Amino acid sequence: MMTIELNSRQERILEIVKENGPITGESIAEKLNLTRATLRPDLAILTMSGYLEARPRVGYFYTGKTGTHLLSDKIKKLLVKDFHSIPVVVNENTSVYDAICTMFLEDVGTLFVVDNRSLLVGVLSRKDLLRASIGQQELNSIPVNIIMTRMPNVTYCRREDLIVDSAEMLIEKQIDALPVVKESEDGLEVIGRLTKTNMTKILVNLANDDII
Amino acid sequence: MMTIELNSRQERILEIVKENGPITGESIAEKLNLTRATLRPDLAILTMSGYLEARPRVGYFYTGKTGTHLLSDKIKKLLVKDFHSIPVVVNENTSVYDAICTMFLEDVGTLFVVDNRSLLVGVLSRKDLLRASIGQQELNSIPVNIIMTRMPNVTYCRREDLIVDSAEMLIEKQIDALPVVKESEDGLEVIGRLTKTNMTKILVNLANDDII
Repeated sequence: MMTIELNSRQERILEIVKENGPITGESIAEKLNLTRATLRPDLAILTMSGYLEARPRVGYFYTGKTGTHLLSDKIKKLLVKDFHSIPVVVNENTSVYDAICTMFLEDVGTLFVVDNRSLLVGVLSRKDLLRASIGQQELNSIPVNIIMTRMPNVTYCRREDLIVDSAEMLIEKQIDALPVVKESEDGLEVIGRLTKTNMTKILVNLANDDII
Repeated sequence: MMTIELNSRQERILEIVKENGPITGESIAEKLNLTRATLRPDLAILTMSGYLEARPRVGYFYTGKTGTHLLSDKIKKLLVKDFHSIPVVVNENTSVYDAICTMFLEDVGTLFVVDNRSLLVGVLSRKDLLRASIGQQELNSIPVNIIMTRMPNVTYCRREDLIVDSAEMLIEKQIDALPVVKESEDGLEVIGRLTKTNMTKILVNLANDDII
């Protein structure tokens, strides 16, 4: 959010423009019993900060934007490519047991499953593996493609997608991670992993001012 | 973020103050071959937006703050109590098998373990349960208190804590959820669950301007 704390005169100008806009600088000055010159810095600040817009020969009008609005604009510009993690993939013929071991070794919550051409065919979550592991099956003999969530039911994103759209998908689909893919004629190549951990880090980075 | 897009003159002023600050308005004007009056609105904007600070009889100096800084102030004020979820708890004598079933029924990634007085004694993640389930143990006969992460090694937060501090703990400890607790003389009562899903939702809400 912008911490331009508006002073009381700027607040009054905002009120005047909200009620009377479009309104000229002269008319605002008149209502406040001040000169146009005195108001110039205030109007400049309100315009530059996005609260007001000025149109030649029309005057100032209220944009409806608030300080928060301006923050949201920043978040809305963040792209997947700047925040995703490295993907961990297993072949579709890998056994469930080996997939669980890979998950522990790599310390990730989601594995992406690829075919022999390295194209995305499915996704394995901890939940999928936990469900399989309490079944009566022999984990060493069943391949992951039996228990995975498979294409076309896999939700994915691309490098150029917006972080906020991907975050919404994570929430809506109730999943922990999205594969970041590159589309080719043959299918989807997995090039990244975007998780709720990435989202949590973005929030911390925004708070610590580490995202410019 | 504030979308005050600085104009090129303001950018130059920032550069001058960064290199020469503290510096008077007159000296800045001189370096730019402009009058002090011409610069007044620019200096007002740079001061109000937090880029520069002005001290009487000293001059302007650079604060090191950026536009983003201002957004970060907003995130830093968010409190746990406004965003956490409902906790799901199991008794410490529950079997691992029943805990796994509870996790699926309640559709959560983390269970909190309490003793007979309902006080927090441990935490169970999907990872803990997955590890147990591929062991050679009989899941119906071992209680969760054998495999859980136990106090005092449990990381927790309180209702009044900052979201950003809790988010940092989630990342640092590499866990998916924190119990939100109320401290009493006897121990910790679990009153909430704060997860990376909550953090992801906060990010989306900030982007959509739903958090004022």
